[in-house]
Amino acid sequence: MADVWQTAMDHAVGAARRAGQVVREALQDDRKVMTKSSSVDLVTQTDQKVEQLIIQSVKEKFPTHRFIGEESVAAGESCVLTDAPTWIIDPIDGTTNFVHAFPFVAVSIGFSVNKQVEFGVVFSCLEDKMFTARRGKGAFCNGEPLQVSDQEDIKQSIIATEFGSSRDPDAVDRIFSSLRNVLCIPVHGVRGAGTAAINMCLVASGCVEAYYEIGIHVWDIAAGSLIVSEAGGVLMDVDGGPLDLMSRRIVAANSRTIAERIVREIDAFGPPRDDEPLRR
Amino acid sequence: MADVWQTAMDHAVGAARRAGQVVREALQDDRKVMTKSSSVDLVTQTDQKVEQLIIQSVKEKFPTHRFIGEESVAAGESCVLTDAPTWIIDPIDGTTNFVHAFPFVAVSIGFSVNKQVEFGVVFSCLEDKMFTARRGKGAFCNGEPLQVSDQEDIKQSIIATEFGSSRDPDAVDRIFSSLRNVLCIPVHGVRGAGTAAINMCLVASGCVEAYYEIGIHVWDIAAGSLIVSEAGGVLMDVDGGPLDLMSRRIVAANSRTIAERIVREIDAFGPPRDDEPLRR
Repeated sequence: MADVWQTAMDHAVGAARRAGQVVREALQDDRKVMTKSSSVDLVTQTDQKVEQLIIQSVKEKFPTHRFIGEESVAAGESCVLTDAPTWIIDPIDGTTNFVHAFPFVAVSIGFSVNKQVEFGVVFSCLEDKMFTARRGKGAFCNGEPLQVSDQEDIKQSIIATEFGSSRDPDAVDRIFSSLRNVLCIPVHGVRGAGTAAINMCLVASGCVEAYYEIGIHVWDIAAGSLIVSEAGGVLMDVDGGPLDLMSRRIVAANSRTIAERIVREIDAFGPPRDDEPLRR
Repeated sequence: MADVWQTAMDHAVGAARRAGQVVREALQDDRKVMTKSSSVDLVTQTDQKVEQLIIQSVKEKFPTHRFIGEESVAAGESCVLTDAPTWIIDPIDGTTNFVHAFPFVAVSIGFSVNKQVEFGVVFSCLEDKMFTARRGKGAFCNGEPLQVSDQEDIKQSIIATEFGSSRDPDAVDRIFSSLRNVLCIPVHGVRGAGTAAINMCLVASGCVEAYYEIGIHVWDIAAGSLIVSEAGGVLMDVDGGPLDLMSRRIVAANSRTIAERIVREIDAFGPPRDDEPLRR
């Protein structure tokens, strides 16, 4: 089966590049937006167009494969990870950035079989950086191998995180509490690219030592999680347990030492899971 | 005198580009760092080398001009703005980013006469973007004119800010309090590039509607302030009064409406001024 997945990965890279081109062209035009759950959580026509472009091209080539896509789920489709070959797609990770032409916007395509990510592709289309990883074969950016930072001193580390799109006061309380704890360890700095996929690529590239967030979705992290682990990093839940792609919580770090240090500072909470049947 | 300042500005652009090349080359090498006031506030050998490179080249061409440079001030030189032609230099704005190869690193050169900024040059050297502005003549990025966002709805806006390098609990309290207030207006998102100069260029480019921070220095904002105002933006103090370049506080926004809305949410405090004689 190995060759099949390589063919699929090659297809994903091509699809991500074409999708990125659509995103870049759309940025030249007016960015006509409509609100989804809140003014913070935007979806654009481009988002839907790009997801359909990727799904259609995959369906022609791999008609039996399944899909989990941000826009399809928003439209009511299932978000359950099965053992079947599944393409997990975020057509535009960083929609808010996209709306504002803030320079971090990514197309994210993960591919899982037996609930395990086999390859991940993240195309940071305004930076023109193509991040790829295949299980057991390393992670790359534009063909150059990636390696996480070797910094094990938390005080010399940069941590990436986001405020997320929820403005629920209890969630905001916990997000701010965790962030303050992390900042005052103290760490070297806190950053956020505004996209989970690119934050994870920054971990894989060694630019930040760790990224954590509560509230993200499986399509934000499926591809990036493999890129981090193939670059030598570690993944875990915000409570220190194993990563669950559907749990909407993640810590991705250069090392177990840094990841566990961050976990100690996180005031964890559990938003509704991505595969929760009654969530919508 | 106009031609003299244009010659000086041309010189600044060349010096910034050469400085950026040194920065990029240094990123290939080991980044040997030494701590300054805290582990958060790093200064690298490159920082000092780049500042000397700029100052020496200016001294040869404009022997009577004065300087305010981050590294020179750290080494004990005066930080008082006089009416004399003065080059205000941050050799590497975003030193923490530099140390981690995080992709926002800028060389910032402002030039003031009679305490008024006449031109500003910010070279985002990893993005290869040269931002320039001359008083009364507009702002540009790589030669293309810049224009701030026309968004006047704060809820549709992205705001840039930073946690800063202070870990003093009272300062951190106020920074977090302001940030939470701003986030929960609610705004569309909060971002931070990790450099004041690039945050201001993001305002000038229309990617974010506003940037505010307490704790920055004159060398972080002198060039960027003119780039914002020449791109059609407004500048003010965090209390809504006029901007004072030495006060270590700034709001830079696309419009007075957005700036004043932000000001209402900021829990203002006053760190020691840059021109405070007993500060060090």
